[in-house]
Amino acid sequence: MDNKHEILELLRAVADGTATPEDALLELKRSPFEDLGYAKVDFHRSVRQGAAEVLYGASKTAEQILGIARAMGERGCRNILITRMDAEKAAIVSAGVELEYHPEARLGIAFPGDRPALGSIVVCTGGTSDMPVAEEAALTAEAMGNHVTRLYDVGVAGLHRLLSSLDVLMRARCVVAVAGMEGALASVVGGLVDCPVVAVPTSVGYGASFGGLSALLAMLNSCASGCSVVNIDNGFGAGYLASMINQMEGLKAD
Amino acid sequence: MDNKHEILELLRAVADGTATPEDALLELKRSPFEDLGYAKVDFHRSVRQGAAEVLYGASKTAEQILGIARAMGERGCRNILITRMDAEKAAIVSAGVELEYHPEARLGIAFPGDRPALGSIVVCTGGTSDMPVAEEAALTAEAMGNHVTRLYDVGVAGLHRLLSSLDVLMRARCVVAVAGMEGALASVVGGLVDCPVVAVPTSVGYGASFGGLSALLAMLNSCASGCSVVNIDNGFGAGYLASMINQMEGLKAD
Amino acid sequence: MDNKHEILELLRAVADGTATPEDALLELKRSPFEDLGYAKVDFHRSVRQGAAEVLYGASKTAEQILGIARAMGERGCRNILITRMDAEKAAIVSAGVELEYHPEARLGIAFPGDRPALGSIVVCTGGTSDMPVAEEAALTAEAMGNHVTRLYDVGVAGLHRLLSSLDVLMRARCVVAVAGMEGALASVVGGLVDCPVVAVPTSVGYGASFGGLSALLAMLNSCASGCSVVNIDNGFGAGYLASMINQMEGLKAD
Amino acid sequence: MDNKHEILELLRAVADGTATPEDALLELKRSPFEDLGYAKVDFHRSVRQGAAEVLYGASKTAEQILGIARAMGERGCRNILITRMDAEKAAIVSAGVELEYHPEARLGIAFPGDRPALGSIVVCTGGTSDMPVAEEAALTAEAMGNHVTRLYDVGVAGLHRLLSSLDVLMRARCVVAVAGMEGALASVVGGLVDCPVVAVPTSVGYGASFGGLSALLAMLNSCASGCSVVNIDNGFGAGYLASMINQMEGLKAD
Amino acid sequence: MDNKHEILELLRAVADGTATPEDALLELKRSPFEDLGYAKVDFHRSVRQGAAEVLYGASKTAEQILGIARAMGERGCRNILITRMDAEKAAIVSAGVELEYHPEARLGIAFPGDRPALGSIVVCTGGTSDMPVAEEAALTAEAMGNHVTRLYDVGVAGLHRLLSSLDVLMRARCVVAVAGMEGALASVVGGLVDCPVVAVPTSVGYGASFGGLSALLAMLNSCASGCSVVNIDNGFGAGYLASMINQMEGLKAD
Amino acid sequence: MDNKHEILELLRAVADGTATPEDALLELKRSPFEDLGYAKVDFHRSVRQGAAEVLYGASKTAEQILGIARAMGERGCRNILITRMDAEKAAIVSAGVELEYHPEARLGIAFPGDRPALGSIVVCTGGTSDMPVAEEAALTAEAMGNHVTRLYDVGVAGLHRLLSSLDVLMRARCVVAVAGMEGALASVVGGLVDCPVVAVPTSVGYGASFGGLSALLAMLNSCASGCSVVNIDNGFGAGYLASMINQMEGLKAD
Amino acid sequence: MDNKHEILELLRAVADGTATPEDALLELKRSPFEDLGYAKVDFHRSVRQGAAEVLYGASKTAEQILGIARAMGERGCRNILITRMDAEKAAIVSAGVELEYHPEARLGIAFPGDRPALGSIVVCTGGTSDMPVAEEAALTAEAMGNHVTRLYDVGVAGLHRLLSSLDVLMRARCVVAVAGMEGALASVVGGLVDCPVVAVPTSVGYGASFGGLSALLAMLNSCASGCSVVNIDNGFGAGYLASMINQMEGLKAD
Amino acid sequence: MDNKHEILELLRAVADGTATPEDALLELKRSPFEDLGYAKVDFHRSVRQGAAEVLYGASKTAEQILGIARAMGERGCRNILITRMDAEKAAIVSAGVELEYHPEARLGIAFPGDRPALGSIVVCTGGTSDMPVAEEAALTAEAMGNHVTRLYDVGVAGLHRLLSSLDVLMRARCVVAVAGMEGALASVVGGLVDCPVVAVPTSVGYGASFGGLSALLAMLNSCASGCSVVNIDNGFGAGYLASMINQMEGLKAD
Repeated sequence: MDNKHEILELLRAVADGTATPEDALLELKRSPFEDLGYAKVDFHRSVRQGAAEVLYGASKTAEQILGIARAMGERGCRNILITRMDAEKAAIVSAGVELEYHPEARLGIAFPGDRPALGSIVVCTGGTSDMPVAEEAALTAEAMGNHVTRLYDVGVAGLHRLLSSLDVLMRARCVVAVAGMEGALASVVGGLVDCPVVAVPTSVGYGASFGGLSALLAMLNSCASGCSVVNIDNGFGAGYLASMINQMEGLKAD
Repeated sequence: MDNKHEILELLRAVADGTATPEDALLELKRSPFEDLGYAKVDFHRSVRQGAAEVLYGASKTAEQILGIARAMGERGCRNILITRMDAEKAAIVSAGVELEYHPEARLGIAFPGDRPALGSIVVCTGGTSDMPVAEEAALTAEAMGNHVTRLYDVGVAGLHRLLSSLDVLMRARCVVAVAGMEGALASVVGGLVDCPVVAVPTSVGYGASFGGLSALLAMLNSCASGCSVVNIDNGFGAGYLASMINQMEGLKAD
Repeated sequence: MDNKHEILELLRAVADGTATPEDALLELKRSPFEDLGYAKVDFHRSVRQGAAEVLYGASKTAEQILGIARAMGERGCRNILITRMDAEKAAIVSAGVELEYHPEARLGIAFPGDRPALGSIVVCTGGTSDMPVAEEAALTAEAMGNHVTRLYDVGVAGLHRLLSSLDVLMRARCVVAVAGMEGALASVVGGLVDCPVVAVPTSVGYGASFGGLSALLAMLNSCASGCSVVNIDNGFGAGYLASMINQMEGLKAD
Repeated sequence: MDNKHEILELLRAVADGTATPEDALLELKRSPFEDLGYAKVDFHRSVRQGAAEVLYGASKTAEQILGIARAMGERGCRNILITRMDAEKAAIVSAGVELEYHPEARLGIAFPGDRPALGSIVVCTGGTSDMPVAEEAALTAEAMGNHVTRLYDVGVAGLHRLLSSLDVLMRARCVVAVAGMEGALASVVGGLVDCPVVAVPTSVGYGASFGGLSALLAMLNSCASGCSVVNIDNGFGAGYLASMINQMEGLKAD
Repeated sequence: MDNKHEILELLRAVADGTATPEDALLELKRSPFEDLGYAKVDFHRSVRQGAAEVLYGASKTAEQILGIARAMGERGCRNILITRMDAEKAAIVSAGVELEYHPEARLGIAFPGDRPALGSIVVCTGGTSDMPVAEEAALTAEAMGNHVTRLYDVGVAGLHRLLSSLDVLMRARCVVAVAGMEGALASVVGGLVDCPVVAVPTSVGYGASFGGLSALLAMLNSCASGCSVVNIDNGFGAGYLASMINQMEGLKAD
Repeated sequence: MDNKHEILELLRAVADGTATPEDALLELKRSPFEDLGYAKVDFHRSVRQGAAEVLYGASKTAEQILGIARAMGERGCRNILITRMDAEKAAIVSAGVELEYHPEARLGIAFPGDRPALGSIVVCTGGTSDMPVAEEAALTAEAMGNHVTRLYDVGVAGLHRLLSSLDVLMRARCVVAVAGMEGALASVVGGLVDCPVVAVPTSVGYGASFGGLSALLAMLNSCASGCSVVNIDNGFGAGYLASMINQMEGLKAD
Repeated sequence: MDNKHEILELLRAVADGTATPEDALLELKRSPFEDLGYAKVDFHRSVRQGAAEVLYGASKTAEQILGIARAMGERGCRNILITRMDAEKAAIVSAGVELEYHPEARLGIAFPGDRPALGSIVVCTGGTSDMPVAEEAALTAEAMGNHVTRLYDVGVAGLHRLLSSLDVLMRARCVVAVAGMEGALASVVGGLVDCPVVAVPTSVGYGASFGGLSALLAMLNSCASGCSVVNIDNGFGAGYLASMINQMEGLKAD
Repeated sequence: MDNKHEILELLRAVADGTATPEDALLELKRSPFEDLGYAKVDFHRSVRQGAAEVLYGASKTAEQILGIARAMGERGCRNILITRMDAEKAAIVSAGVELEYHPEARLGIAFPGDRPALGSIVVCTGGTSDMPVAEEAALTAEAMGNHVTRLYDVGVAGLHRLLSSLDVLMRARCVVAVAGMEGALASVVGGLVDCPVVAVPTSVGYGASFGGLSALLAMLNSCASGCSVVNIDNGFGAGYLASMINQMEGLKAD
C-alpha cells in the first residue's frame, strides 16, 4: 500500500528540509486517518481483481448517480454496481453512460465489462416472490466476479427440487438463502450443506409475517450451524458477503 | 338428546295444567341454556367412547384436584386426564386415587383403564428439549383413545431421521409438529404429508426466540397448506385437536 | 405406487445386465426423491375427487396465470382455484379461459364444473367487514367439493343470531371462525361446538388491533379446546384445512 | 368550598390593613394551588359517605403502612383500604391496628367498620385463576360502600353460567369483567348488558398471552359499546372506577 | 319489557290448548334469545329518551347507509348517528335523507331533531390535531342528548388553559380526555377531577408514538384513579360511554 | 418579572380601596396561573435575545399559519420558525409574508432578520439520507441564534471524515447526532467529545430498522455518558434543546 | 495539550537527524490516536474541578473494584463514584478503602472528600418507588460537584406539591425528571420550566408498563420542547448529563 | 466419500446376483438418505483436520453427556466440544473423562489434545460483560483448530484500544464482534476491516436493551458491508462460522 510511502515521503521531506516539522504536523492532523496508512485509503472498499465498485443509489438523485458513475468511468472503473436504483433513474443514467440494468433487482452495472466467474455461490429462494431480493444478491455477486448458480422456488412446496440439486449445493463455497414467510429455507439448507450460509429474510408475506419479522426471527433461531443473517431484503449485503467468503484465499502453509 | 324431552315435558305439564305458564316461564329463564337442549348439557365436554375426561390442574390445589377426581371416579369415570399438575401436587393426588403420572409432561391420568388406540396420530419434535410439550400432546391423545407414534428430535439436524420415517408420517391421519427456535419442522412436515398438521410452537430457545414468538410466527407463516397453530407450549390443546381430527367419522353416503 | 416399480425395474435392469451399476447410481442420484417412491411424486398436492387444483395468484402475472390455467385445462383439470388474483388480472385471464370470478375474495375458478357438496363446513364471521376473508375460505372449500354454510355478522353484537343458528353449528364437521378486532368469535364458537374450529384472524380494525395482531393473540389464547389458528387474513388456508378435516375418511374397523 | 372564603379573608385582611399586600403576595405564592380553592384541598381524594380511604401499599414498608394507618385511625378514619400488601407486611400491620386481611387479593382494610352496600356492581371472571384480581376489584368496591355480586368462572367454558345469571347482570349499574388469555369475556358481557363495563385484563395465561397483552388488546378492540379498559391486573382501579359510576347521583331536574 | 309477555302468551296458548307443546318448543328453539326476554330485543341498543340510534358506517356502502337510514326514519327514528362515514358517502346519503354532516369527525346525523342537553360532559384534547377524534366523541355525546363542553388544546403547552377551566372540569359528571403523543392529559385531568375519566389515545404523532401505542400505554398506566381507556382513535366509543355514565340514574333510596 | 408587580398592584388596589376584595378574588381566579407570576406569562416560550418564535405547522392550515405569522410580525416578531410545513403550504404563506423556506427540512422562517451565531453547535449525520432531519435541527438552531457546523455523512463508512473533523467536534458546546439504521454515530461521537450529545434517531432505513426503532434503541443504550435521545425524526426538538444548552449562562461566582 | 508538542518533537527529531523517517513512521503507526493529540489522551473522561472519577461497578467483582479504587486513591483521586454496586460488594470494598455507600441507589463514593455544590439541579420523581433511580441521579450529580434539590413524589397525585415548588424548579439550570408508569412527569415539568429536562423512565410499574416501555415512549413523545430521554433506570447517565449541562461555561463575549 | 462406493457395491451385488433387486430396493428404502451418498453420512458434522466434534450440552443430562463423550472417545475422537454445560454437570463429566472446562463460557473440551492454530480469527467485545459469550466463540474456534486473538473491552469507551490494535484486526481472516447494549462495535469494526464480520448481539444491558433486542437490531442494520448476525448470545454459532470462513480453501486455479 503506497500510503505508507506517502507518509514516509512526507517524513523524508522533513528530513531533507523541504518541509518544516510544523507543515508536516499540519498535514498529518488534516488527514488523520487515510494518510497514515491505516488500512483503508478510501473507505469505499475497492473490491479486488475482476470486481465492481459499489455506488449506493438509494439516497442519490439520478443526476448525482450519473455524475459519479461518469467520473469513476473516466478514472477507468468498470463494472460499477449501482444498488437500489429504480427504473426511472436508470433511464436517466443510461442516457449518459453505458448501463446494464436489472429492473427486478433495481440494480445497474455501469461500464459493464469482462468479469471472472470465480468459485461457486448458490443463491436459492423459498418462493418466486423472493426473486427480486435474490436477484440483487446474485447480480451483486456476479458483478464482483463470482460464479453464481440460482435455485429459485425451492422452499417447502418444492423441497424435492432442492434435494434434486444437492450436487450443486454440495459444491458451493457459500450459499445465500433468501426466504420470506416462515424462513424455513435457511434451516433446511443449513442442515444440508457444509459451507457458510448467508440467510436473507424478505418482507414477502402478509399477516403475521410483519414485514419480514417472522422470517428474520426464524433465521436467527436456525438450529443449523454455519448460518448467519443479514437485514430484511438486504440482497446486496448478502451478495457482497458471499463474494468475500467465496473469494477467501487459502490458508498459508507456514 | 333428552333435553328436548325435558322442555317438552315442561310444556306438556303446562298443557295439562300441572304447571302454570308463570312457573314455566321462570323455569325457562332460570336455566336458559342447558335446559333448552342447545347442544351441550355440560360444557365440560364429555369425551366419547374410550376417551378421557379432562381436568385442568393449573389453577387448582392438589386437594381440589383430588376431590374432583375422586368424585368423578365414583361416578364411574376412567382415564381422567389431569393437565399442568406438578410432581408435588401429583404426590398428594396419588395418595388418594390411583394415578398414572408423567412428570415430564406434568400430566396425570386418574383411574387409568383400558383405552383403545384408534387411527394414527404422529407427534414429532424438532429437538429433544421440545419433548415435555410433545409428551403432553402424545399422552393427551393416548388418554383419549388414539394410537400415537412419537418421532422425536427430527428437526433440521436430524432431517434424515424424519425422511427415514416417511412411511409412518404418510400413514398418519393427523400430525402434531412440536418445535421451538425457528419452528421449521411444521413447514417441512406440512410439505411432506397430506393430512392436517397441528403445529405447536414451544418456548424452547434463547435470545431472539423471545419465549416462543419466533417459532409461533414461523408456524403461522408456514407456506404449507393444511397447517394450523395452537398457543405456545400448548401440548394439551394440540393432542385434543389431533384426537378430534383422528376420530372424525367418515362422510355419510347420502 | 408405481415408483417402487420403477426402481425395481432399474434394479432388475442392473440384475440382467441391461444397465451398469454405474448408470444406476447416476440415475438414483439424479432423482433422489420422487423416483424413490417417497410418497409424493408431485408436491403440488393433487386434491382428490370433486376437488380443485390450486394456483397461487399473488406473485404471478396475469399472463403467467392464464398460461398455467390453460395448460392445466388442456390436461383436463376442472375447478382450478386461483387465489389472490385482483380484478385487473382476472379480466385478462377470463379473456383466455372460462373463469368464475369472485372480486371480494379476489379468487377465481377456472374451468368451473360440477363439484360435490360433501359433509358440512360452517364459515362464520364476527362482522360484515370480515366477509372478504370469509368468502376466500368459503369459496375455497366449495371449490374443493364441500358443502358450506355461511353465518356472517354473528359476533358479539349479533350473538343472538349465532345462538339462533345453533342447529347448523352443531351439525358442522368443521367450523371456520373469521374475526378481526378482539377475535372473541373463535372462543365463543369453540365453546359451543364439538368439532374442530379453524380460527382466522383478520386485519380488520383500527388502533390497537395492530393489523390483526389483537385478533391473532386472542385466538391463540382461546380457552376453548379444539381451536387452532391460521395466519392473519389467510382465508384460503382455513378453507383448505377445513376441507381436509371435513373430508376425513372414517376410522377403519380393524 | 371554604377555600374561597380563606382567600377572601386574606384579601379582606389586606383591605382592612391587617395584612400588607406584600405578605399577601407571599402567602398566595406559597400555597399556589390548594389555598386558591381550585377544587381539591387534599389531592388524597376523600372518599365520601360510607367509603374508604386508600393507602397504596406497594412501595411502602410495613412500618410505614402501620404508621400511616394508625394516624388515619386516630383522626377517625374507618375502612382504610390498603392495596398490594403481601401477607408478611399484613402480619406486621395487624399487630398494630385492627386489620381485615384478604391474602388472595393482597388487600387489607384497617379499622373495618360498618359500610353501606349501595347500588349494584357485578364482578365477573373468565376463569378461576383470574380470582385474585377480581377479588381486589370486588373488595375495593365493597370497602367503598357498594353492593357487589361475584360471578366467577363464567368465561367461554362456563358461558351457560353467565347466561343463567342474566338477571343479576341486567340489574347491575356497572360490571367489572376480569379475564386473561383471550379476554373474550368483556366482549360477551358488553354485548349483553346495557351499563358501563370496566374490563380488566389479567396476566393469567402462558405462551402467546405475553403477560396479559393478548387480553389487553382484545379488550381494547372489543366491538361492544360501553366498554373501557384499565391496566393489566389493576383490580383496584376497576373497583374504584366501578364505585364512582355506581354511586353517580341522578341528573338534576332543571 | 314485553318479551316476557310474549313468552307468557305463548305458554298461555299452550295452557289453553291453542298451541301444542311441540309448536311451542319449535318456536322457543327458533328464537332462542330475544324471544325469551333476555334483556335485549334488538342488540342494536336502543338508546333511551332524547338519544340517537347508531349506524356504523365504516364497512357499509353509501347506498346501504342510505337505505337503512331511510328505513329507520320511516319508522320514526330521529337523530340517527352514522359513524366513520367519509364526505363522499355523506354526499350520496344527504341526497336521500336530511343529514347533518361533520366532515372532520366523519360523522353524520340523519333526521336531526331536537335533543336534550343533559348533565355535563367535558371533552378535552392535548393538541389541535386530536380534534377529529374529540369531535367524534363530542358529537356522539351530543347526539345522545348530553350537554358537552369542549376544552381543546389544553395539553402540556396549554396547561394554564386547563387550569383556568377548572370550574368547568370540576362540574363535569364525566370527562373524555383525548390525546396522542405522550398522552399525559389523561393523567393530569385524572388527578384534578373527581368523576370518571374516559381516556382516548389518538394516533396523532410520529416516530416513537407508533400509531398511538405510546399514548395508549401511558393512559393505561395512568396513576390517577378513576381513569379507563378505549381503543386508539375511538372517539365514538368514548362519547357513547360518557353518555352512559352522564345519564346514570341516581341510587334508589331503599 | 413584572407579573409579580401586577399582582402586587392588584393587592395594593385592594389595600387602598380602589378594588374590592371580591373583585380581586374574581380577577385572581380568572387568570389562575399566568397572572400569579408563576414563571411563564405565555407558555409559548418566548425565546430570548436573537432567537425565534416557534409556530408548529403540522396541524395547521396554510391560512392559519399565514394569519398567525402575520399577526406576530405586526407585533414585531422576527425570525419566526415554522416547523413541518410542506412546500404547498409554504407557497401560500410566502404570498402573504416574507418567508425563507427550506423544502428539505420542511421548515420556514417568517420575517427573517439578523440573528446572532452564538457558541458552537455541531450537527452530524450518519448518512446523506439523514439530512432532512439534520437540516431541521440545524436550521432551528440557527434561527434561534446559534452558530452551527454541519458534518454530514460521517457514519461508519465515513468515519475518517468524522475523525478528520475532531477539532470542530472538540470545540462544540453541544453536538446533535442524527442517524438511522444502527444509530452507531451517537455512541461514536459520544465517546469522542466531552459535551452533551443530543441523539436523533431517524426513520431512514429498511427491513429491521422498523421505522427508526433500531436507531432509537441503539441510541438509548449508548454506552457513552452525556448522551440523551429525542423522538424519531425530531430534528426540531434536538435543535431547540441544543440551543438551550449552547446558550447556557455560566455559573455565577458566588 | 502537549501531545502536539510530542509529535512536533518527533518531527523535529527527524528534521535534525536524531530519528530516521522510518523510525518516525513506526512510532506514528504504533500510537495511532492518543499520540496525535486528538483530544483525549485517556478516554476515561477526567472529570474536572470538584468532580468525581467514575468506576462502573456492574460487571466487576468486589476485588476488582477495590483494587482499582485503591490504585486511584493512591494517585490522589477523591470522590470516586462507583455505580451499580450491591451491598455485598460494598461491604468488601469498604473493608479496604474509605467508602460512603448508598444502598438504595447501589452507589458508593470512595475516598469521599470536600466537593463543591455548584449551580442548581432539581431531581424530581413521580412516585416514591422511583426513588432508587432518582437517588442514583442525585448522588451522581452531587459527587460531581453540583447542588441538587430533590422533589420526590410530585407526580399526578401530588401535582400541588410540584406546583408549590415552582420557585425551586424555575431556578434550576437543569431538571432530571424520573418517572415510571405513564411518565407524565416529564411532560408536565417540561411545560413548566425553561431549562433542559433530562427524562429518566423507570421500570417501576406493572402490567402494561412493560418494564418501563410505557414511560419511555411517553417521554420520547413529550410535547414539551427541551426534553430528552436516557435509558430506562439510567439514573447515573441522567445525573452525569445534568452535571455537564449545569456546569456549562457561559458563552464568550467575542 | 465411500457412500457412493457402498451403493455401487450394492448395485454390483445385484449385478452379480449376490443380492436380489427386491433386497436392494428394501435396503435403499430403509436408509433413504445417508446411504445414497448425499453428502452427509452423519449429520453431526464431522469437523475436519485438527478440529473438534460438537456435543450440545443444553438439553442433556450430565450422565448422557458423559456417556456420549466416553463413546466418542473410545472411537478415537479428540477435542470434543461440549457447549452450554454448567459447572455442576461439568463436575460429573470430568469424573468420567478427561475434561478441560471453561466455567465462564460454560464450555468443555473432552479428551483435549493437540490442535492446530490455523489462520487468524479476532474475537472482540464492546465491554467486559460480553466476555462469557466472546469466550464461547473464542474457545469454540480454538477447539476447531483456529488461531484466535482476543480484543476485549474495545467498545466506544475504549475505541482507542481498538484503533491501537488495527494491525491485528487488519490481518484477521474473520472477525467476531460481540456486543450488547447499542451494538455499535459491529458497525465500527465492519467499517475498518476488509474481511467477513460475524456479529453476536448479547443480552448484556438493562432497560431498553430488551434482552439483546437493541444490539440485535443495530447489528442487522449495520451500514458496513460484510457483516452478518447470529442469534443473541450465540457465541458457539459465531465461533463455528468464523472457523468455517477462516479455514476456507483457496479458489482453484482452473
